[in-house]
Amino acid sequence: MGGGPEYPQRGEHERELLLCVLPWPEKASEKVIGEIRDEFPNLEMHYIAQTYEDLKTGKTEVPEDLCKRASYLATLSWLPLHVSSVPNVKFIQFYSAGTNHVAKHPIYTDSKIPLCSASGVHGPQIAEWVIMMDLVHSHKYTILYDAQKRKEWKQKVGMEGVSDNVGKRVGVLGYGSIGRQVARVAKAMGMDVIAYTASPRPTPESRRDGGFIVPGTGDPEGEYPSAWFSGLNKDSLHEFLKQKIDLLVLSVPLTKETTHFLSTEEFALLNEVNPAGTYIANISRGQVIDQPTLVKALERKQIRGAALDVTDPEPLPADDPLWTAPNCLITPHVSGSTTVYAERAFQVLRENLRRERDGKHLVNEVDRDRGY
Amino acid sequence: MGGGPEYPQRGEHERELLLCVLPWPEKASEKVIGEIRDEFPNLEMHYIAQTYEDLKTGKTEVPEDLCKRASYLATLSWLPLHVSSVPNVKFIQFYSAGTNHVAKHPIYTDSKIPLCSASGVHGPQIAEWVIMMDLVHSHKYTILYDAQKRKEWKQKVGMEGVSDNVGKRVGVLGYGSIGRQVARVAKAMGMDVIAYTASPRPTPESRRDGGFIVPGTGDPEGEYPSAWFSGLNKDSLHEFLKQKIDLLVLSVPLTKETTHFLSTEEFALLNEVNPAGTYIANISRGQVIDQPTLVKALERKQIRGAALDVTDPEPLPADDPLWTAPNCLITPHVSGSTTVYAERAFQVLRENLRRERDGKHLVNEVDRDRGY
Repeated sequence: MGGGPEYPQRGEHERELLLCVLPWPEKASEKVIGEIRDEFPNLEMHYIAQTYEDLKTGKTEVPEDLCKRASYLATLSWLPLHVSSVPNVKFIQFYSAGTNHVAKHPIYTDSKIPLCSASGVHGPQIAEWVIMMDLVHSHKYTILYDAQKRKEWKQKVGMEGVSDNVGKRVGVLGYGSIGRQVARVAKAMGMDVIAYTASPRPTPESRRDGGFIVPGTGDPEGEYPSAWFSGLNKDSLHEFLKQKIDLLVLSVPLTKETTHFLSTEEFALLNEVNPAGTYIANISRGQVIDQPTLVKALERKQIRGAALDVTDPEPLPADDPLWTAPNCLITPHVSGSTTVYAERAFQVLRENLRRERDGKHLVNEVDRDRGY
Repeated sequence: MGGGPEYPQRGEHERELLLCVLPWPEKASEKVIGEIRDEFPNLEMHYIAQTYEDLKTGKTEVPEDLCKRASYLATLSWLPLHVSSVPNVKFIQFYSAGTNHVAKHPIYTDSKIPLCSASGVHGPQIAEWVIMMDLVHSHKYTILYDAQKRKEWKQKVGMEGVSDNVGKRVGVLGYGSIGRQVARVAKAMGMDVIAYTASPRPTPESRRDGGFIVPGTGDPEGEYPSAWFSGLNKDSLHEFLKQKIDLLVLSVPLTKETTHFLSTEEFALLNEVNPAGTYIANISRGQVIDQPTLVKALERKQIRGAALDVTDPEPLPADDPLWTAPNCLITPHVSGSTTVYAERAFQVLRENLRRERDGKHLVNEVDRDRGY
C-alpha cells in the first residue's frame, strides 16, 4: 500500500457530464449556465452549438466518447443514432415544448431513458400576446394607429365604445401553462376566469399544474378559475360556451377531438348567449377552428372579433378571405417567440438536475404511451 | 290621544333626496342605480339627465325645491348658484377625477360642504392602455398589423428580438390609482415594480391607497413595489431613474415641480443605466415631458420608445415632429375612456352613502387647501 490514494478522490471521477447540443450560442444563456455551474460544482458541461447547416442537414458532429460519458443530454432535436451510444444518460432534456419530432427514434421507441420536454416555457410570452390582442381590439388601437400615420388626432373615435375588462369573463379552453398565465393576468385586470380541461378536475390536487412553471407566473395551484368545465365532446364544450364568455382563449392541443372544435354551431351558440360579445384568441392550432365558418361568423357579427396567431393552412395564402374578415387580427405564428427562450429552457434543465439529485420525480417527463 | 299616530311614521318623513344632475342617460347606470335603491330604501332619487346643449351653455334647469330638499348631490360640473340653494346637502359627489373646474365657485370657496371626487375610476382602463402599448411595442405588433394589411405572412420579423416581461422592471412615477393598477397587472406578468411618490411612504400605513378603488383592482395595501422612492426635485427623480427601469410609467399630476420632469438630462441618465432599454408610457400630461428633447432622445435611440396618450399641445399639430419620431406611438388622449364610466362613478357615490350612513370618513374628499 502507500503511495497514491487507494480510492478515487472526490472530484474528477465523480464529475458527471452534461452534454448540450443546441442551436443557440452558449453565450445566449451564460447567466443561467453560470448559475447551474455554481449550483452543481461536480457537473462538467460540454456545449456544442449547432450551426444553421447542422439543422438543415439534421447532422451534427458529436464525439462518440462524449456521448458514452454523458449523464445528461440537453437537446432541441439532435439525438445519437443508437440507444447504446448513450449508456450512462440519466435523462434527456428536450428544449422543445413537445417530443413528437423524435417519436420514431429508437431512443423513444426502444429505450426507457426518461425524456423531458420544455413545456411551460411559452406561458409568459403567449399569454402576453393574448392580452395584447384583446386590448388592441377593445381599445380600438389599430384605428388610432392608422390615424397616427395620417397625423390625425381622432379623439372621438378612440373614446366611443371603448370598454375595459373589469367584471368581464375569460374562458380558457385548455387550462395548461399558457392558459394559466392568461388567467393570472386577466384576474389582475379584474376579470372572472373559467377553465376547460380534457379530463375533470374535481379536487385541489387535480387542479395543480404538474409541469414546469416560469417562476412568478401561471396558476400553480389552479386557484384562479371560478368554475371548471371538462370533456372532449361537443356537448361538454357547449356547456362551457354557454357561460357568457367575453374573451375565449383557445389553448388546447390539436387532437382528433379538438379538430374543428369551433364551427357554425358554436359561433351561433356564442352569439345567442352573448350577442356579438365574445372575442376569440387562438394560439393553439389553426385547425381547432373550422376556418370558413369563422369568416362567416365574423361577417355576420356573431362574435366581437378574433385574434389568430395560427391559421389553416400556414402560411395563410394571400387570397384567403380570412385576411380581410371584419374584426380579425392575424399574426404569423409568432406568439411563442422570446429572446430568452434558450435561457428559460435551461431553467427546466436546472429544475430536473435538482430533482435527479434529490431523488424526486422529474418535471415534464414524457409519457411515451400518451405521447406527451 | 287616540286616532292617528302621534309621531311621523318611518317612511316619508325620513326619506332623503339624492339629486343627480349628470350628462348621461339614467339607463346607462341602471344596474348600479338599482343596487343603490335596494341598499338605501329610504333614499329618494331624482335624476336630471343633462343635454349636450346644457353642457355647452353651462346651464341646466334644476327646480329650486329639489335643491332645497337634497341631502346628496351627484354632479359632473353643474352646481346651484348659491351656497344657500342647497341648505341640506351633506356632501356633493363629483363624477370627475378632480374638482379644479369648480374651484372658483362659492360652494368651493365659501362653504364647508364636503366635496368628493371620482378619483380612482380611471385605474383599470388607463392601466390597460399602458400594458397594451408596452406589449404592442415589445411584441412588434404594429409591424405585423401593417403586414396583415398587405396580406403578408412575415414570420421572421415577428420572431426576432421579441422579448417578454418576466423579470423586467416597471417604474411607476406617481403611485396613485392608475399606477397601482399598472403594478398589479405588471406583477402578474412577472415584472418587478418600483414606486415613486411625492412624499415618502416609509410605513405600511402610508403606503395604503386611501382613495376609491375599483373592487378587485389596484394595490390597496401598497404591497407590490419592491422599493419606494420619493421627492419633488430632480435629485430624487434621478435616484429613481438609476434603477434600470424597463418600463417607465408617468402617472404624476402636473404641477410646477413635475413640469418638464423628463428632459435632456433624464433621457441621458436612462440611456446610461439601461442603454436603449427604457420604454416610456405617459398617461399624465404632455407637459411632464420636455417634448422636443423626447424627440431627440428617440432619434438618438437613448430610450427604447415611447407611448403617449398626452402631448404638448393637444391636439398635436399635424406638423409636429413627434408624430413620426422613431418608436413613438401616439393616441389622442383617450386612455381614460370606458363605456362604464358613469356606472363606476356611481360606485364611488354608493361607497360615500355607506360611509355617511355609518358615520365614517368619506372617500375621495377634496382638501380645499391642497386643491385635490
